[in-house]
Amino acid sequence: MIDLYHHGSSVCAAKVRLALGEKGLAWEGHYLDIHKGDQFAPEYLKLNPKAVVPTLVHNGRVILESTVINEYLDEVFPEVPLKPNDPQARASMRVWTKAVDEVLHPACAEVTFSACLRHRVKRLPPKEYEKFLASTPSQSVTPQWRERRKDLVTLGFDTPGLGEQYRLYDSYLDKMEKSLAHQLWLAGDTFSLADIAMTPYVNRLDMLGWGQMWEQTRPQVTAWFERIKARPTFKPALLDWCPPDLTAELLTFGRQSWPSVERLLSQAS
Amino acid sequence: MIDLYHHGSSVCAAKVRLALGEKGLAWEGHYLDIHKGDQFAPEYLKLNPKAVVPTLVHNGRVILESTVINEYLDEVFPEVPLKPNDPQARASMRVWTKAVDEVLHPACAEVTFSACLRHRVKRLPPKEYEKFLASTPSQSVTPQWRERRKDLVTLGFDTPGLGEQYRLYDSYLDKMEKSLAHQLWLAGDTFSLADIAMTPYVNRLDMLGWGQMWEQTRPQVTAWFERIKARPTFKPALLDWCPPDLTAELLTFGRQSWPSVERLLSQAS
Repeated sequence: MIDLYHHGSSVCAAKVRLALGEKGLAWEGHYLDIHKGDQFAPEYLKLNPKAVVPTLVHNGRVILESTVINEYLDEVFPEVPLKPNDPQARASMRVWTKAVDEVLHPACAEVTFSACLRHRVKRLPPKEYEKFLASTPSQSVTPQWRERRKDLVTLGFDTPGLGEQYRLYDSYLDKMEKSLAHQLWLAGDTFSLADIAMTPYVNRLDMLGWGQMWEQTRPQVTAWFERIKARPTFKPALLDWCPPDLTAELLTFGRQSWPSVERLLSQAS
Repeated sequence: MIDLYHHGSSVCAAKVRLALGEKGLAWEGHYLDIHKGDQFAPEYLKLNPKAVVPTLVHNGRVILESTVINEYLDEVFPEVPLKPNDPQARASMRVWTKAVDEVLHPACAEVTFSACLRHRVKRLPPKEYEKFLASTPSQSVTPQWRERRKDLVTLGFDTPGLGEQYRLYDSYLDKMEKSLAHQLWLAGDTFSLADIAMTPYVNRLDMLGWGQMWEQTRPQVTAWFERIKARPTFKPALLDWCPPDLTAELLTFGRQSWPSVERLLSQAS
């Protein structure tokens, strides 16, 4: 019995849905509207004190953190392996999943917030707006996220240090391009948890309408993402759960933001 | 054949030396003086493009990132297992090792730099001082580390946000206390990579002379650290490699800093 507490716009939840899909495992979903604050409900905090999604409950055992959950699923359900056989390739897989957690995840929060979500915040009625800025976010990004979010809402693309985050994100497309030049998938010639970890982050850029970040210039990333999108697990895990209004907003505000993004990407660090 | 590129004051290198010691594996050391910039030598950058220690080379295979290296060692040399048998306990172990990388490691950089290393920088001759502040650090902490380091040198314990990092560090002693209340080691009743990952971070506080952070108030952490220090692997891996002048400075400046640290710890976040 597998229960998954998740949300449609969470990159981390998508990682776990994708792993469950690839392994062909049935699961029962518990959908939390994180934009409405469902993750702060006392009964959820008992499961997940950081108030983040996803949480996996397997036969009553609570497993936290998407990267850890995916390693757990691969150990407990080894039938469809998602780790390479070779220990060196497995190490390379873990360098990817670690970088996703440490570098790409905080960068993705800055990118998504600056390019799209801040517009949601800005159109809140004054009282709601103040309430949002004063609220404590769940511990999903960095300890500084509450202050940082305030800067991003008020300063937008002029927030100091924002360009660095965009360029960091972009640098991972470079790393992908280099890795994929000599192998089919990120950690070797078999699809692995490294590809699963990167998928929601490339997909986020795609949903923002920024395919030009790889389509003309990074043929290996382009081909990799085509292969990813062709997998039957992609659409159910990555697209179908995203609330339609958010899907529309990501694309609308993403396209509007592109000139600013292009400017940030072209600056030197 | 195991080669380890390492340094005496690196918490990450200590993690790997401890794992190698626990497994009883022989290794050849290549000592890099990271305070002198050895990690930027072109031949080392070929092995480790982020210019950080440690790097493990096993039969010619380059393995990066201390947490990944320790998982690799445990897979390739399973004779002395450092992962619990139970998959849920293994997940718990990985929640610890992940938190060490994401939260404790950056906090430790701020703590060590503010309490000790900045004094080294401040007594540099003016030209060397300017050169240090303008230099690009290796990518061992956060993308913002270069700017942050400047603030820490000039503002010391008044650097905005520093208290939060000290309290984050301290909160992990709380988490340890809670976990150890119902089990002998951090991820269950067997010593694991979770204990190995936390050891250099508790030891850092101890070397700064701040044992009062647990000795009177956290009996489980106190007992855990006693058990850790009693292991024959502790001294060779954790203490013997630290340059004597740094060992002395950590204690001297750490003790001097304690009143400021106490003040930061007592503030609300």
